[in-house]
Amino acid sequence: MATKPYKEFSPNWYTEESPKGSYRAIFKWGDPKAYKIPKENLYKMVKELFKMTDEDFVRQENELGLEKVEYNIPPTLSAAHIAALTAIVGEKNASQTDYDRLSVAYGQTMLDLMRMRKKIIENLPDIVLYPENKEQIIKIVDYCNANLIPLYVYGGGSSVTRGPECMKNGVSLDMRRNFNKVIEFNEKNQTITVQAGMMGPALEKILNNATTNELKAKQPYSCGHFPQSFEYSSVGGWVVTRGAGQNSTYYGKIEDIVLSQEYATPIGYIKTDNTPRKATGPDIDQIMMGSEGTFGILTHVTLRLFKWQPQNHVKYSYMFKTWDDAMNACREVMQGEFGMPSVFRVSDQEETQMMMRMYGITDSPLDKLLQFRGYKEMEKCLLLGFTDGEKKFGKNVAKNIGKIAHKHGGMSLTGVVTTSWEHGRFSDPYMRDNLQDFNIIIDTLECSVNWDNMEQVHLDVRKYCKSRPNTIVTTHISHMYPQGGNLYFIFITPEKDIAEFRKYHSGLLDAIQQSGAAISHHHGIGKFFAPWLEGFMGEKQYDIIKVLKQHFDPNGVMNPGGTLGFDLKPEEKHFKK
Amino acid sequence: MATKPYKEFSPNWYTEESPKGSYRAIFKWGDPKAYKIPKENLYKMVKELFKMTDEDFVRQENELGLEKVEYNIPPTLSAAHIAALTAIVGEKNASQTDYDRLSVAYGQTMLDLMRMRKKIIENLPDIVLYPENKEQIIKIVDYCNANLIPLYVYGGGSSVTRGPECMKNGVSLDMRRNFNKVIEFNEKNQTITVQAGMMGPALEKILNNATTNELKAKQPYSCGHFPQSFEYSSVGGWVVTRGAGQNSTYYGKIEDIVLSQEYATPIGYIKTDNTPRKATGPDIDQIMMGSEGTFGILTHVTLRLFKWQPQNHVKYSYMFKTWDDAMNACREVMQGEFGMPSVFRVSDQEETQMMMRMYGITDSPLDKLLQFRGYKEMEKCLLLGFTDGEKKFGKNVAKNIGKIAHKHGGMSLTGVVTTSWEHGRFSDPYMRDNLQDFNIIIDTLECSVNWDNMEQVHLDVRKYCKSRPNTIVTTHISHMYPQGGNLYFIFITPEKDIAEFRKYHSGLLDAIQQSGAAISHHHGIGKFFAPWLEGFMGEKQYDIIKVLKQHFDPNGVMNPGGTLGFDLKPEEKHFKK
Repeated sequence: MATKPYKEFSPNWYTEESPKGSYRAIFKWGDPKAYKIPKENLYKMVKELFKMTDEDFVRQENELGLEKVEYNIPPTLSAAHIAALTAIVGEKNASQTDYDRLSVAYGQTMLDLMRMRKKIIENLPDIVLYPENKEQIIKIVDYCNANLIPLYVYGGGSSVTRGPECMKNGVSLDMRRNFNKVIEFNEKNQTITVQAGMMGPALEKILNNATTNELKAKQPYSCGHFPQSFEYSSVGGWVVTRGAGQNSTYYGKIEDIVLSQEYATPIGYIKTDNTPRKATGPDIDQIMMGSEGTFGILTHVTLRLFKWQPQNHVKYSYMFKTWDDAMNACREVMQGEFGMPSVFRVSDQEETQMMMRMYGITDSPLDKLLQFRGYKEMEKCLLLGFTDGEKKFGKNVAKNIGKIAHKHGGMSLTGVVTTSWEHGRFSDPYMRDNLQDFNIIIDTLECSVNWDNMEQVHLDVRKYCKSRPNTIVTTHISHMYPQGGNLYFIFITPEKDIAEFRKYHSGLLDAIQQSGAAISHHHGIGKFFAPWLEGFMGEKQYDIIKVLKQHFDPNGVMNPGGTLGFDLKPEEKHFKK
Repeated sequence: MATKPYKEFSPNWYTEESPKGSYRAIFKWGDPKAYKIPKENLYKMVKELFKMTDEDFVRQENELGLEKVEYNIPPTLSAAHIAALTAIVGEKNASQTDYDRLSVAYGQTMLDLMRMRKKIIENLPDIVLYPENKEQIIKIVDYCNANLIPLYVYGGGSSVTRGPECMKNGVSLDMRRNFNKVIEFNEKNQTITVQAGMMGPALEKILNNATTNELKAKQPYSCGHFPQSFEYSSVGGWVVTRGAGQNSTYYGKIEDIVLSQEYATPIGYIKTDNTPRKATGPDIDQIMMGSEGTFGILTHVTLRLFKWQPQNHVKYSYMFKTWDDAMNACREVMQGEFGMPSVFRVSDQEETQMMMRMYGITDSPLDKLLQFRGYKEMEKCLLLGFTDGEKKFGKNVAKNIGKIAHKHGGMSLTGVVTTSWEHGRFSDPYMRDNLQDFNIIIDTLECSVNWDNMEQVHLDVRKYCKSRPNTIVTTHISHMYPQGGNLYFIFITPEKDIAEFRKYHSGLLDAIQQSGAAISHHHGIGKFFAPWLEGFMGEKQYDIIKVLKQHFDPNGVMNPGGTLGFDLKPEEKHFKK
């Protein structure tokens, strides 16, 4: 993480470890000791754009979240229920402490962080359970269903959709502590079955070391799924939200990687078939993925595995003169039928400018060369990525990308830029907290778009974003397909008022919906985006998932309080104008 | 088609055009003028195996189906309903002739052919409608739903699952005649939207000629979907049954190729979103695909397109010493991560022997070389196929296949064998009718299997098949995946009794189910395999599709009479022992 002091004025960055038991220990991204402060030129850019002075960088001491988590919110559940639920998992696997209850209530969207910084404590579970096996989960589901107790699940904790938030109190299952083991490894089928609370890095480590650990494999493997939240994401979370990793262009979204699943639902336990493909009616796996805890609790997942061969990565990066050139090149690559690159992402004009600063290219000799060759500030766009798979396959993919990039006026910046991106890949989120200490917020929204609508969605949504003064909006297309891609918006702006933030965020989702994009490509829906879901799907299609909900959860105990919009009032819903 | 007379005795093959208006004109595969008689050495092999003599090859004159289709089965629908339905599509697009009613009642499974040869006329529609547009289809669905009239759909006509059979009479929509047009071509997104009755060859022709026809495209395209029934299959049939083409290892199954769909259902019209991927709850497209006309009528389909570049095919074929070697090589290719071949199929010992005869290799110098090198009769196994996609991509795939084949003792037979296979690819079904004229039946069953169960399923199902005397059973694995593949059984045996055939067929499905395979990889379920569906899925998962059925079709008018097992009695269902 960057620690280099600035040459001139340096704000009073908070670089201490988060105090144990504090609010900050919950809301801060990642490792409690780690932090990331922006590079000096990025700091200057932000300051300039937001018309701030060094003096404005005054730390919000009362919102650093350093205080111990303490509140006086008694549980709503009766002592008898608490005792019965505790008995299922055992005393050691149940908690009602203030800290544990809050730690599973919120996710990682800006609304969550703002609330925790302001010590707004709401929607808490009455009790947190740490199940050890699927039998305990089945018993908990049955008990909650029989006694009408709301039941929530907390996976890796990086939800940006208010997914795990316990709107109706009740029980939250924290899957991280005990429900994180390998159930079966099948090298012939190249699959692994794990408990849903298995964290991404733990799984990847087991697979990378498969030849020397208990898997006793013939070769090392990879899970192929690396969302930016990788370090704080669980396999179960990937699956129920229909997530995508940054390498999904090669490996596929999680729905491509999942082979079969097991769920504990109020109407019983189901285990889907694990043959590779079938023609046996509607696809049950595709019904369960995306149900976000509203149909049942995902217990076990069988994932397709890939060979771990990072030595085969071929890195590349190209600068284009215009956004249009860059998009055309990307589309041609996606439709080229020479295989897919792994990471493949193109940044718009504003994001390119930001990255040039972050990677220290701005004002370097390379920057001058780019200018000389006609790649202009706030016009040029950066494409970067690398390949995966067998060596010659990857080489051929990279070669074809190069050919197409050149055809569209792209200039190769070699693989070095990709290396810079990789360094920031999982550490950039740390910067968010350091900036928010000064009331500068960073949040993201993303959507799925066809190629023929890409330019318009970019224009429309940016227009909305920029209607707010002093707002940086950077965009990239990642997770691309022959038919389109995921348009990902990041906004950075000074804001400390929750109501103002919510208004802006809501308007942004409206802008996405009005533009004709799908309102989520891989973040899921949760409770935060739920008001837009029926508007996106249309009433008839929305009714289909309502019917499934009614079937699986007739008593409405599974993740209640707005998830997927099931119990929203008509006036809360946003429709396309 | 083969017409060469045999050197010795030649049976009295029926080589005339099917008489117009005859039963044969309906049940005979394909072009009414075309036929295919087995090569002489194949004829000899069949004769020898079935312990038949030339004298046994006596044509069943009364079962050639040369008679005019005539029967006296009055419609069950009232004249008022007939008039109202006719009014929706217009007089010219409605028919109640004996021929037209029978022509949409049956599909192409052996049971259908046997019934037609024996003039067993059952499960007829009362009226056949030929809708011209989706508005007419919506009106028909609404009318049938309001008046409790059973509604069926006939697509390309090659169902082997009794899919379109009108068990409860009523209306059948024959989509072929008028509902077969391009609705929209979008070259930027590389998609085409067509009416569901578009036939495979018509679509492929339009796409291959896209630069010179009304599509005005920049390059020619392909649909990538070529089932063996290609010539007599419709886009709608591909989609509602979850079909797979023979090139699916590269292009994917139809559920990978479909981008979005439109359905007229009793509860209204739905049009799914066409962005490339999303995380907006359960996948509606994956709910509708596989519904086989029981939720609603598929009207429009948007398909992802591919570049048409047959010049890039790299053909290959390898002979392995054992079935085990061949399977291991295939699995290694599928897990190799160098991209996927397009056609990739490996034949078991018996099928290999059959193919060697069909392609004239038996007793040739090549056959002697194989024997000399230790590739033994009824032990050796043939792998063949070709690549698709960009040129160097395909070359690299083929090179890697070669490398892996050699590692497992495979001997290259060059691409010539693949060319022989390609020649028979769409014409082999013609042979079926010529053989059945002598009471020799050919039928197929297929299932989806994981690699770790492949050998056992092959053993178990073959054991059952061979429990019948005088039965040729050939098997191949095609449509392969890193996790397994489709095991496809073809049986050839002398049989003219329908009850005996049904008993054998039913036992074969039992054997597949008991072996742990999924009961259909791409043929669908229809009414024929429906008794096994709940046993395959388990009651809890089967309930999910029952709930969807109840939602879409509360009056039970959509493809009623057993499809997907919705209205079967408990005693009709087959469960795993």
